[in-house]
Amino acid sequence: MPSGKRGRFSPGTPILDAARELGVYVESVCGGRGICGRCQIEIQTGNFAKHAIVSSAENISPFGPKEQRYADKRDLKPGRRLSCSSTIQGDLVVDIPADVQVNAQVVRKADDGRHIDRNPAIHLCYVEVPEPDMHNPLGDFDRLKAQLEKDWTSKGLNWQNLTIDHHLLTSLQPILRNGKWKVTAAIHQDGENTSPALIALYPGLHNEAYGIACDIGSTTIAMHLVSLLSGTTIATSGTANPQIRFGEDLMSRVSYVMMNPGGREAMTIAVRDALNDLIGQVCSEAKVEASDILDMTFVGNPIMHHLFLGIDPTELGVAPFALAVSSRVQLPASQLDLQVNPGARVYVLPCIAGHVGADAAAATLAEGPHRQDDLMLLVDVGTNAEIVLGNKTRTVAASSPTGPAFEGAEISCGQRAAPGAIERVRIDPQTLESRVRIIGSEKWSDEEGFEEEAQKFGITGVCGSGIIEVIAEMFLAGIITTDGVIDGSLAEKSDRIIANDRTWSYVLWRGEPQLTITQTDVRAIQLAKAALYAGIRLLMDKMEIAAVDQIRFAGAFGSFIDPKYAMVLGLIPDCQLENVKAVGNAAGVGAKMALLNRDHRREIEQTVRQIEKIETALEPDFQRHFVNAMALPNKVESFPELEKVVKLPEVKEQTGEDDGRPRRRRRRP
Amino acid sequence: MPSGKRGRFSPGTPILDAARELGVYVESVCGGRGICGRCQIEIQTGNFAKHAIVSSAENISPFGPKEQRYADKRDLKPGRRLSCSSTIQGDLVVDIPADVQVNAQVVRKADDGRHIDRNPAIHLCYVEVPEPDMHNPLGDFDRLKAQLEKDWTSKGLNWQNLTIDHHLLTSLQPILRNGKWKVTAAIHQDGENTSPALIALYPGLHNEAYGIACDIGSTTIAMHLVSLLSGTTIATSGTANPQIRFGEDLMSRVSYVMMNPGGREAMTIAVRDALNDLIGQVCSEAKVEASDILDMTFVGNPIMHHLFLGIDPTELGVAPFALAVSSRVQLPASQLDLQVNPGARVYVLPCIAGHVGADAAAATLAEGPHRQDDLMLLVDVGTNAEIVLGNKTRTVAASSPTGPAFEGAEISCGQRAAPGAIERVRIDPQTLESRVRIIGSEKWSDEEGFEEEAQKFGITGVCGSGIIEVIAEMFLAGIITTDGVIDGSLAEKSDRIIANDRTWSYVLWRGEPQLTITQTDVRAIQLAKAALYAGIRLLMDKMEIAAVDQIRFAGAFGSFIDPKYAMVLGLIPDCQLENVKAVGNAAGVGAKMALLNRDHRREIEQTVRQIEKIETALEPDFQRHFVNAMALPNKVESFPELEKVVKLPEVKEQTGEDDGRPRRRRRRP
Repeated sequence: MPSGKRGRFSPGTPILDAARELGVYVESVCGGRGICGRCQIEIQTGNFAKHAIVSSAENISPFGPKEQRYADKRDLKPGRRLSCSSTIQGDLVVDIPADVQVNAQVVRKADDGRHIDRNPAIHLCYVEVPEPDMHNPLGDFDRLKAQLEKDWTSKGLNWQNLTIDHHLLTSLQPILRNGKWKVTAAIHQDGENTSPALIALYPGLHNEAYGIACDIGSTTIAMHLVSLLSGTTIATSGTANPQIRFGEDLMSRVSYVMMNPGGREAMTIAVRDALNDLIGQVCSEAKVEASDILDMTFVGNPIMHHLFLGIDPTELGVAPFALAVSSRVQLPASQLDLQVNPGARVYVLPCIAGHVGADAAAATLAEGPHRQDDLMLLVDVGTNAEIVLGNKTRTVAASSPTGPAFEGAEISCGQRAAPGAIERVRIDPQTLESRVRIIGSEKWSDEEGFEEEAQKFGITGVCGSGIIEVIAEMFLAGIITTDGVIDGSLAEKSDRIIANDRTWSYVLWRGEPQLTITQTDVRAIQLAKAALYAGIRLLMDKMEIAAVDQIRFAGAFGSFIDPKYAMVLGLIPDCQLENVKAVGNAAGVGAKMALLNRDHRREIEQTVRQIEKIETALEPDFQRHFVNAMALPNKVESFPELEKVVKLPEVKEQTGEDDGRPRRRRRRP
Repeated sequence: MPSGKRGRFSPGTPILDAARELGVYVESVCGGRGICGRCQIEIQTGNFAKHAIVSSAENISPFGPKEQRYADKRDLKPGRRLSCSSTIQGDLVVDIPADVQVNAQVVRKADDGRHIDRNPAIHLCYVEVPEPDMHNPLGDFDRLKAQLEKDWTSKGLNWQNLTIDHHLLTSLQPILRNGKWKVTAAIHQDGENTSPALIALYPGLHNEAYGIACDIGSTTIAMHLVSLLSGTTIATSGTANPQIRFGEDLMSRVSYVMMNPGGREAMTIAVRDALNDLIGQVCSEAKVEASDILDMTFVGNPIMHHLFLGIDPTELGVAPFALAVSSRVQLPASQLDLQVNPGARVYVLPCIAGHVGADAAAATLAEGPHRQDDLMLLVDVGTNAEIVLGNKTRTVAASSPTGPAFEGAEISCGQRAAPGAIERVRIDPQTLESRVRIIGSEKWSDEEGFEEEAQKFGITGVCGSGIIEVIAEMFLAGIITTDGVIDGSLAEKSDRIIANDRTWSYVLWRGEPQLTITQTDVRAIQLAKAALYAGIRLLMDKMEIAAVDQIRFAGAFGSFIDPKYAMVLGLIPDCQLENVKAVGNAAGVGAKMALLNRDHRREIEQTVRQIEKIETALEPDFQRHFVNAMALPNKVESFPELEKVVKLPEVKEQTGEDDGRPRRRRRRP
């Protein structure tokens, strides 16, 4: 446990060997000498009737001298055993505790709860190297290599063809002598067909190896520090992407490169500096030496990906949006000026297409549409929405140009998500009066004590998720028609409907300033949601499906919107509401999976190769879907699942503005 | 021809394909498009009765349109054909001309005449890459990779798992666009189990690739610039090793490192600077761009090897003389600050032992004792003599501390080999009068016109090979006894024998200054030659042999000494004189073989693993052999081969000084 793998072994088999035979990667830095303590296990006792197993403490060999020595010198919790030094004597249910941590100083943070099987690209191997011998004048590295092969090949690892990083070749001899010929080798091997490389060497037993998983967003960079030996996330940090000073959105950054000599270099340095700052932060938080970081995985959209790697993103700014490289990128961290161990390696996940990046690939890896039968729609909303749709049989992907409206830009009262911003809205369909909630407060505006909290921050605007709600509530209250027109006739009924130039507005918040939703605001959201929906619809057409089983919203925007309102506005197709979930930074989780398990790297490489890429700009149907999706919820389908929980307004005859197109009357079931 | 390989093919087989099937690496950069001209051949016509072949021009397909187009645009000598565009129609003897050179500007120097079969680690592959396509958004690198696999896998190459150097990933896109999607890829692959790497990319057809083979001696650095496409050496240069200013011999350089902080760094920079100067020289001589240098091989003794690679050589200065690495070293040239193509690769040959370096390995590769049945003794004389002895069954190696006497140091009238130094000596056994020749003149001192030439340079000393001759001639003239004592009784007979403190000297040259050979000089040479001989003898004991079939002197010293005198002095065991050869810079030839053919890399790697290393300091017999070898020629064997050409003096009773040991009378057959 927790992998649940089972097998039969002869009595007397060391538990560590049994685990390895089952493909469970129990770590053992010392190679079974009973000194590293990394291979700790616990026996679950009891009658596991379902599996016809009675697991008891008598079915494991008695606590032995190696374990006693370890318990005396270090610290072995009651009930814990060393799997290298204890053998199977009968039926056993074996638990691998997630918290096996030797360095007690390490601060551990609550993980996201997701179990990731470990099979990292880095192995620590303790080894006792024969001293140099004039009779057999093999070089120090050659004897180290031979001993690693000898000691570790039997442990399921294959260190043949081991290479050595040049920086290490020049420092190898003093390390071996400082350690009195006892050293811990850090070996990197990513993939069966690649040569293993000796990337770090420590005198004596070295029991720590860390990795970094990082999502480079255009707005925010998020970084996780993970123990490669236990799989635990031990620190997380984030920062604004400093490239924002060169351009708020992606295209303006590409323009900056095109217009300014040295612009690409400046943005590359900016992001790498920020990464180095974050590395310093997570290390200092967790009291870890940056030199113990040996592996790193990175994800990001194509433009972030290119700028991070030092590649000019200009080609991504114009059709045909050619990536310099779409497959995974592997290289030493030192080539990217990252301040970690000089031998550390970097793995960058593959990009799916010119507008669907390694972040979308990582989110796919995390949510796994390709691992299940159910059809999953995975959406990451930003300036571009990245959309993946599929199941284990087939997967398609596209991006859709939603523009920045969902992030609060282009909205008259829009603002970034910050304390004081309106994030929740309810409108009474009878009175058309509104109630709101703001970021930083748990109270609704009609509850006692709201005033005080509101004064603390000041109410200055509506954030992205609030805009979705207010437009959706306006629609549900009948203030907006199916066609997105604010119904001016309601001005007779409520003074919240006010004239604004030649159109109408809705007064959402009577304060200083007064916040109104204008007809232009409604149009901006309509355009954004139509683009998103048209992209989704295009992929559904490609898959020849009429409905999806599951919807996942990745990214910050998705974390805060209420799925119900997203559906009312027609951002997404009809779906059982309990199957619509926000999954937060799924890209970061995917990066962590690739960090901890090489099999996940191969999995996403293969999945990305198989994903069918749809370029919305080339699809004639996209424009048709876009126009149809302008309506609320939209004109092309019914919403039986949504209508179970929300009463959608009767479709009225259109009033006010008209785009002059003939309309079909929306049918109801 | 010249490989001599033969095979049977169906009529219509392109000659290029047939060559490849036979394992003959005919180059074709364009992949058979008939545009690179690298695959030129000539047909030898005639009746090759020995092989029952009648080769005629009718047995090759007629001159075709591809060949005509190439001949029109470029220059195809009469009789030349393109093997990619001509097919076998009957029996053919096919010649691969050594001079296939596309760049007519290239200065070609006489090669050393040795034919090296080509199978380089670098391949140039012309490829036409599909343009980017929004429907299939593979990255530029990914499409390039796929096309290389598609076009070139059928040509006996396997570019699966192709990786790309990071410096190239950042410059890939403009190169592809400058070449209008037609590019030449330079791919490095050294060994079947290693991933091929894209290391350079050129717009359009690029028809040049060069390599450097370099021998880093402690005194002299020798460099060859070689065309990787034709195998021709096109420039050679050499320079003094600038590390000499830190210490004349190897041990003084190690001491410098131990005594001076930053000393290792300073010597590493010095040698790399010298290499960069040499690269500039050979490139400018051959009118080649340094950026067209894609592969480099290096050899050197262990201390030169370590300092070049940036490894502290301190461990090599004290027992057990531990090498940091003994196996081959492969790395990018950029990590060694070498100013060649940023993707160029470096291959450093393996070292045999702490005192027997990659230079000895390279000399072994060049002379090939391990490839033959005859027992070969391979000696490279320097401050340490590196000695390899063996045949295809078994090979042993050792080094012996000869000291610098053979190089003219520690000799009262010794000097480095330079114009004016005495290099040849004859002594009349009757009169004891001497004749000499000097470097820079073809005349003997008793010939007319010698005076003028001698005045031009001035006669200031005796070089290493001259010292061997004068001591040997003194012995043959009876001036020195078997025990190495100058016979003072001869002062009665000749005024060339003069008293010097309590011993005697021989006046070699009466001039200004007068050059004399003192008893101390004789002792220094005795010690040096005894060390060399004892080392050789030890290896012969290990091999359980009493005689060798062939002797090879490698290095500068060996190039100038007369084998007969080396044998008279007892530097080497008895051997047929025609089988004793000086082979010049055999280490440089070995480096060139490793540069041009990967099979030679594998060959020397395997050979070095199999060579038995003998540490003379640990062998009790060494001291015994050393003492016995002090005598002239020596006391332990007879010299039947030498006595066929030289009359050795009768052994006299000892006179003058004595080391006090009992002596056996030397037996004559």
